[in-house]
Amino acid sequence: VYTGAVEAQRLSTALYNRRAMHDLGADPTTLGVVGGGQLGRMLAEAAAPLGVEVVVLDPTPDPPAAPVARDAMTADFDDADAVAALAERADALTFEIELADPDALERAAEEAGIPVQPSPDTLRVIGDKLVQKRHFADAGVPVPEFRPVDDADDLAAAVEELGPVMLKARSGGYDGRGNVPVEPGDDYREKLRAIGDRPAMAERFVEFDRELAVVGAVGADGQATFPVTETVHREEILRATGAPARTGDFVRERAREVAGDVLDALSGRGVFGVELFETGDGEVLLNEVAPRPHNSGHWTIEGATTSQFEQHVRAVLGAPLGDPGSRDPTVTVNVLGTGRGSRQADLDGASEVLATAGAHLHWYGKREVRPLRKMGHVTCTSIDGEGVEALLHRGRTLVDGLSFAPE
Amino acid sequence: VYTGAVEAQRLSTALYNRRAMHDLGADPTTLGVVGGGQLGRMLAEAAAPLGVEVVVLDPTPDPPAAPVARDAMTADFDDADAVAALAERADALTFEIELADPDALERAAEEAGIPVQPSPDTLRVIGDKLVQKRHFADAGVPVPEFRPVDDADDLAAAVEELGPVMLKARSGGYDGRGNVPVEPGDDYREKLRAIGDRPAMAERFVEFDRELAVVGAVGADGQATFPVTETVHREEILRATGAPARTGDFVRERAREVAGDVLDALSGRGVFGVELFETGDGEVLLNEVAPRPHNSGHWTIEGATTSQFEQHVRAVLGAPLGDPGSRDPTVTVNVLGTGRGSRQADLDGASEVLATAGAHLHWYGKREVRPLRKMGHVTCTSIDGEGVEALLHRGRTLVDGLSFAPE
Repeated sequence: VYTGAVEAQRLSTALYNRRAMHDLGADPTTLGVVGGGQLGRMLAEAAAPLGVEVVVLDPTPDPPAAPVARDAMTADFDDADAVAALAERADALTFEIELADPDALERAAEEAGIPVQPSPDTLRVIGDKLVQKRHFADAGVPVPEFRPVDDADDLAAAVEELGPVMLKARSGGYDGRGNVPVEPGDDYREKLRAIGDRPAMAERFVEFDRELAVVGAVGADGQATFPVTETVHREEILRATGAPARTGDFVRERAREVAGDVLDALSGRGVFGVELFETGDGEVLLNEVAPRPHNSGHWTIEGATTSQFEQHVRAVLGAPLGDPGSRDPTVTVNVLGTGRGSRQADLDGASEVLATAGAHLHWYGKREVRPLRKMGHVTCTSIDGEGVEALLHRGRTLVDGLSFAPE
Repeated sequence: VYTGAVEAQRLSTALYNRRAMHDLGADPTTLGVVGGGQLGRMLAEAAAPLGVEVVVLDPTPDPPAAPVARDAMTADFDDADAVAALAERADALTFEIELADPDALERAAEEAGIPVQPSPDTLRVIGDKLVQKRHFADAGVPVPEFRPVDDADDLAAAVEELGPVMLKARSGGYDGRGNVPVEPGDDYREKLRAIGDRPAMAERFVEFDRELAVVGAVGADGQATFPVTETVHREEILRATGAPARTGDFVRERAREVAGDVLDALSGRGVFGVELFETGDGEVLLNEVAPRPHNSGHWTIEGATTSQFEQHVRAVLGAPLGDPGSRDPTVTVNVLGTGRGSRQADLDGASEVLATAGAHLHWYGKREVRPLRKMGHVTCTSIDGEGVEALLHRGRTLVDGLSFAPE
């Protein structure tokens, strides 16, 4: 049994609040979730064994979570009436996308007399990348230097001071949308146009050795963090993860410390994805925080004693957190959309994934494929003592063997 | 990593048919399932990551599977029109209860032009315990001696010949319903009344050392059997399982052989639960076969590389079977209804289960509790090298700590 001893902070049962925070019975507990994408789908898959039903709200009719949710409501994320109607049916509210509207959530939860977790304040802080960075810097979390950018002059000044930067729209972007790298001498006006001429921030471009992520939960009675994971991005999109991260114990310990400080600086319960940079000199810097289960934690479904999705359900409902220890070395490789336009998502090659021992297919059920759209992921767990290196090779080979039919 | 090397028959990928038997894409694959109880619920939980949607048919409105199914149709199992309507919506038909009607399934599948798996013939054979026993005896599978019993004279003759017997109604019983033990000198008429004066069979009462079970799958290109599991019954109801079974290698090997012979004697694809007796002299005898995922295989959700539910989905759809190897020693303990009458199912004590590392709660979402009704189960996986003995102790302690509120 690989227990991930270094990384896994196993919570003592004594820490837990033993009161029945999670009641099972004739009236099932219903979790209202703003967002019904793949995170909502995996949340619903994980909630069912706990006797928890999920109702999602999403602007897309029949979103990925619908087939496994009790119900899927179709409405915009900021439709206050719809969020209120969701709250009326739920015992607790949460969200699986940063585009959720903190005001609508707050009001709906208050009117229905139910909790919303994580706190809408956390969503407000995280939803604005400049506010987020200031918030964590003020809390003593190490972050790359950054500057607010409202126009081309601001951007020019930032590049002069910091050198190459990552220009990030303050809000509305995820999966790298709204991020562009900027170097001295670039056309700053054009770069700003590329992110939609929105209020932005510039962050010193970090020359990292490795990107790391720590998915952590804040529960009613403490924190539990999953083992430190390495992440591989290309074109600002997460491609693959490996746990345990192939780095030194010192860096792992430091990553856990930084993640712990991040969790301390957040309000409300839930699972958070903490994205980190490991620099050449072994420093660990915060990149960004996601106030929800995170792509870097998908490996926990098969690879950890408790999955990040079950952990989120537990945290939001105030139930005891589950053990975050690793079971076996595990990697995930994302299945991303290919080609040019939007078209029917007909996948070829899944049989090879299904036929590979220790490989697990997660297909999100999206009907249309678009370039770089997250369509699913493949998890490979170690079944014969393989390490992350071999598993990443296996996972990539399997995903390379998948293809989408052309138009 | 505990791989269950002795028990797990790991299938070579070379065995698999590489054609795209499982298509993912714009049109999701839908599995129509007759029966919407906890097996249907766990089937739907396992189907979702594969991109497979589940529609169930059950006479109970809002049955356990409903919250995670795409839809739940309310109709009797033998309602031919309803089964036909289910087939019209599905890409394949299966069932999670022996009470499914083989004729209705056969006709509906034929009319809709879709497969039904396992074959309705298998359901016909297994649905009648006398036919079942004859079928397997004829195939060379070792079974306890048995006699048909149509009246008290038959029963008297059977007891005279065989000694103590288990009297079993030929059809309509499961979870031990319709089974009563009979000893010489008992009132035979009364015993027959106890099983509803139905056509029956009498089987020599086996003095077993241990009950074993092997869950096996028959796929498009071969068999895959999960590690041999020990099962503990009381009052004819399964209480607990442990894998690997605490028995000798010779018995385990023999149990796998017998299970393989059973699978060979069945027609159609799917997962089957093969219940076995281990006698004092190390002999292995077939008790009964369930043509569906089985309570003795619930441990595979956390304990095996592939769960029996995912395996059933794969088998029925003709996709490659998954690796059946064990990940870690694992036990399950059933949460059974207590008290006298039927009442609202308000469970107390779940927090302790949630707070225990390596313990997993599976709550089936049944609104009413009745004596001995299967309400859920608790799985304990080894996280620090514990064996089945210690895990069974942990699981039983946790389940003993659960209680249902009185009326």
